[in-house]
Amino acid sequence: MHTHFQDGDWQAAIERYNVSVALPKELIVPGLDKTRKTLSGNIPNDQPNVAGKSFEQVLSESKSAEATKLRDAIVQGRWTVTQVMEAFLVKAALAQQVLGCYAEIYFDRSLQRAKELDALLTKSKDVAQLGSLFGVPISIKAHLGLEGSGSDRGFVFDVLDQESTDAILTREESKSKDDPSRLTDSTLALLRKQGTHVQTVTGHAISMLLEQGAIIIAKTTMPQSIMQLDTRSNLHGQTLNPRNVHLSPGGSSGGEAASVSSGATLLGVGTDIGGSVRQPAACVGLYGLRPTIGRINNSGTRTTMLGNEGILGTMGPFARSLQDLELLTSVLVKDSTRSDPHLCPPLPWTGFQKPTVDAGKKLNVGVLLDDGFVQPITPIRRAMHDVIEKLQASGKVNIVYVNPADYGERGWWMARQLYFMENGELLRSLASLTGEPLMKLTEYVFSPPVHLHSASDIWLLQYQREAFKKQFWQHVFVNGGGKQALAQPLDVLLCPAAALAAARPQQIYYWGYTSLFNLTDLPGVTFPVAGYAAQAEKDKAFEATKGGKLKPSISDLDQGTIKEYETYREVFENAPIGLQLIGHRFREEELLGTLAMVEDIIGNKK
Amino acid sequence: MHTHFQDGDWQAAIERYNVSVALPKELIVPGLDKTRKTLSGNIPNDQPNVAGKSFEQVLSESKSAEATKLRDAIVQGRWTVTQVMEAFLVKAALAQQVLGCYAEIYFDRSLQRAKELDALLTKSKDVAQLGSLFGVPISIKAHLGLEGSGSDRGFVFDVLDQESTDAILTREESKSKDDPSRLTDSTLALLRKQGTHVQTVTGHAISMLLEQGAIIIAKTTMPQSIMQLDTRSNLHGQTLNPRNVHLSPGGSSGGEAASVSSGATLLGVGTDIGGSVRQPAACVGLYGLRPTIGRINNSGTRTTMLGNEGILGTMGPFARSLQDLELLTSVLVKDSTRSDPHLCPPLPWTGFQKPTVDAGKKLNVGVLLDDGFVQPITPIRRAMHDVIEKLQASGKVNIVYVNPADYGERGWWMARQLYFMENGELLRSLASLTGEPLMKLTEYVFSPPVHLHSASDIWLLQYQREAFKKQFWQHVFVNGGGKQALAQPLDVLLCPAAALAAARPQQIYYWGYTSLFNLTDLPGVTFPVAGYAAQAEKDKAFEATKGGKLKPSISDLDQGTIKEYETYREVFENAPIGLQLIGHRFREEELLGTLAMVEDIIGNKK
Repeated sequence: MHTHFQDGDWQAAIERYNVSVALPKELIVPGLDKTRKTLSGNIPNDQPNVAGKSFEQVLSESKSAEATKLRDAIVQGRWTVTQVMEAFLVKAALAQQVLGCYAEIYFDRSLQRAKELDALLTKSKDVAQLGSLFGVPISIKAHLGLEGSGSDRGFVFDVLDQESTDAILTREESKSKDDPSRLTDSTLALLRKQGTHVQTVTGHAISMLLEQGAIIIAKTTMPQSIMQLDTRSNLHGQTLNPRNVHLSPGGSSGGEAASVSSGATLLGVGTDIGGSVRQPAACVGLYGLRPTIGRINNSGTRTTMLGNEGILGTMGPFARSLQDLELLTSVLVKDSTRSDPHLCPPLPWTGFQKPTVDAGKKLNVGVLLDDGFVQPITPIRRAMHDVIEKLQASGKVNIVYVNPADYGERGWWMARQLYFMENGELLRSLASLTGEPLMKLTEYVFSPPVHLHSASDIWLLQYQREAFKKQFWQHVFVNGGGKQALAQPLDVLLCPAAALAAARPQQIYYWGYTSLFNLTDLPGVTFPVAGYAAQAEKDKAFEATKGGKLKPSISDLDQGTIKEYETYREVFENAPIGLQLIGHRFREEELLGTLAMVEDIIGNKK
Repeated sequence: MHTHFQDGDWQAAIERYNVSVALPKELIVPGLDKTRKTLSGNIPNDQPNVAGKSFEQVLSESKSAEATKLRDAIVQGRWTVTQVMEAFLVKAALAQQVLGCYAEIYFDRSLQRAKELDALLTKSKDVAQLGSLFGVPISIKAHLGLEGSGSDRGFVFDVLDQESTDAILTREESKSKDDPSRLTDSTLALLRKQGTHVQTVTGHAISMLLEQGAIIIAKTTMPQSIMQLDTRSNLHGQTLNPRNVHLSPGGSSGGEAASVSSGATLLGVGTDIGGSVRQPAACVGLYGLRPTIGRINNSGTRTTMLGNEGILGTMGPFARSLQDLELLTSVLVKDSTRSDPHLCPPLPWTGFQKPTVDAGKKLNVGVLLDDGFVQPITPIRRAMHDVIEKLQASGKVNIVYVNPADYGERGWWMARQLYFMENGELLRSLASLTGEPLMKLTEYVFSPPVHLHSASDIWLLQYQREAFKKQFWQHVFVNGGGKQALAQPLDVLLCPAAALAAARPQQIYYWGYTSLFNLTDLPGVTFPVAGYAAQAEKDKAFEATKGGKLKPSISDLDQGTIKEYETYREVFENAPIGLQLIGHRFREEELLGTLAMVEDIIGNKK
């Protein structure tokens, strides 16, 4: 291609890219990927023997597929890092064929690093000195910064070689300024600053993982533009949900969710600007945290929208247990001011902070049954109902039912404008420059109320955002949805993680349950509710109870969600249910400590 | 006026405003204000007897005019709060006549509060329980939030009654949308949200002052638009410098600087978005701190540019000693997440943090003799030279001469655009709506490179700002201006607080020495260098030395500054000299602790 990138070349570029990231032949199981192509079948859990043991045997010997436990097993000498790595790499190859969750898998590099760690372990006199993620296989989202790895933002443009992207940009720049198809100078300047496919630096938080001995075995898929709660692109196709392959794993960190949920990696790092960690975590039965902006140093990330500060994104961890989530967060947060100190306030991680609860002081939990704009589908309402009942019954919790007023609807319209104040020109250009078509959900995010804002419009919008934050805090946390201040502000707010559970591919239009907390910058963690999934029989029974009835449809989005679930009830069967807990800004330790208490009360054991 | 505000009415509005804030007749000293009108004369320091004692006697009995000492004297019963308040209110009335530094003085309210505090003191069993600012007279900048007080932003529009501002805005809104003189809808919406003259809430940080027993005796003047390093408006006229009434006290917190320097208040709170605390503090021989954005909760402030996030402003303290500065900062920072928790990370104040310096570890001080764009005038260069010499000689400090490269010039052009991305429409409108003329320096801030930015232009500019922050930190603090990282990053950077010392009224065009650190959001403190002032004789001697020579003019702004000083050397005589120390983000305690060490070394005793 080089200097003359033509219409249609985008398809050739994808083919070249696919060849470059293809699996080693010996790990391809003929016919396995038909599962993904036909959206049917299940994930094999008992595939090839590895180092004389099946993968499941390896995992079961470690008692649980959790990072904390695997690390202990390794440093105690039960398996070498190399044995562990071989097992997980096979698992990743299988997950890739069934789920399509990886942009890249690092076979050789991971085994090489495993050998180095084994050598270190042999020499080590005190295993306590070894990193807290020693030998743990981890995946990270494809746009995160890892030297020598490939990065993308779900566009074909992103994986072209430097010569080709230069040629495309030069062609665009040389168009006449009167040509209405020409991008603006500022957009072109930003495209020149967007980073390259093969990354030259490792971001701070990612380097913290490496410092603690983690092995990054793969980078995971994202949707085109990274601005969907689904994971589909021309580059990577559709990523599937390991808990139900008819469904999407959510997005935009959907590859991450699929990988960690399948057990091919035990921990994962995604990013969240509108729900992209929390929603996919909920879709696949994992724990996912979106910390306050500034808690993690996000340097090195190849962002979608350089210079956009309407709503900021942040990295967030995925894990298979709350213990693991805390561990991974502690590493991601570490030394966040060491380099690029303009990104973070100096707030060292202090570990789980469990709330003090006794006769004199109950935990003050606000609950948002729905956001007043789009009602959650039945299995989510059922889980909320039962969890609240258990919290009430414990005697340790004071439940405050929060009236959402119009915050849900206003927050959604405001967030959508804040994402694309320039009407989406930058993201659209990433598709138009190669001619690849926009995904349905990429087009959707640019639809009204998104429009081109003037500089004064932007000031007004930013003013409204700050006013919204302040009013929302007052209304929800201080007043508990009432007219006067509570005796004590809420400790946490419990609410759905989404209106839909895991959705059918390209069928999720509403992010309000998560984006509301990006807008207000309150930290949120989603957690699986053990024993809860979409189950038509139980759900219908719940709908027949007094507390289980839907309200009359309150918006078009609400109606669409209800109809989607009614029409495809059998497709949703067994979709996991996750809920969300929202805390105070920068107090992630208290949020996780409170979740631990909530899980104790509701008996959330897998 | 009401519904028909006509051209020329702005003058009548000023007259009405002046009547409303006039001094009590008994405190007017005939002829005293001619000093201000003619820009000549000196401040009287030995005016009327108060409570049987002269004001100077009161102060000298308290050993030093410092808040810490005055509070101790009060709680030990040496004077009642009422006695103290009577003395300071007289002093304030005199300062107002000579310097014109107040927008409002609260005679009755302050005496009432003094009585209440006296009653509290009588009842108190443990004076340690009384607030750390018990009985201390303090002034705050006019746009800060204090319930029941008047606020303005230096515009006549700001002090109109609600009925009049409503009428003016309604008139504007009803113009045809085709009328080119009509303001944009967004600007009009922002004008509807801008707050009213008489304030209805007290901002968080200001309420912390009251909680600690401070008495806010006055609100101080600001320039039109609050975007000048001078203090002049149609509303308040020109505020003068108590150390040399031919000169400006700087700005935009110039009224604050004049009040605290004159001793009429012992502490003051200003705001700083481009140098508006640090530069005036340097102009009048005070200490002034601009903390990192987010260290102080700025709620309640009537801001100049609602929704503008290009560069954020913050409150900052003024004090007469470093001890007092630390005290006032500790109060302003207190409980910053208590209300409006979206504004601040939770970082409690930890008091002075003095650096550890011993044989193995010297203090690493970078010095920026000039910023490579505008050279400081001779008395500032002389003070820098002598301070550096003393630091070197101490054996405790490692001096790193930092090459500014082109950061000074680039930072200046970038900051100016970031302040007014909408080309100044909002601020211009505040003048045009009443017809009052723009001050020369208000017009200046809107001149090129300021221009109307598109949304994409704004993203590009914001991207450039973040890149600048990162590169500046690396270049200055990590590399010390060289090509490779220093063994240890700089602890602090020592530099001028401005290129000019206190300037002649309406003659200061360059903010780069302070705005550079608003742009990069590094905390900065200015401090007076004891014994240093503009002194023609000493300055000429210094210019004749090798280290004292000016470089050839490096820019138009440089040439203008040099010429200004050459032409008006005799006017500058005795203008105080302040320097600036820049620290690490959010580490204000270390910055003040390091300044304490620097002052010990250079023998900075008044």
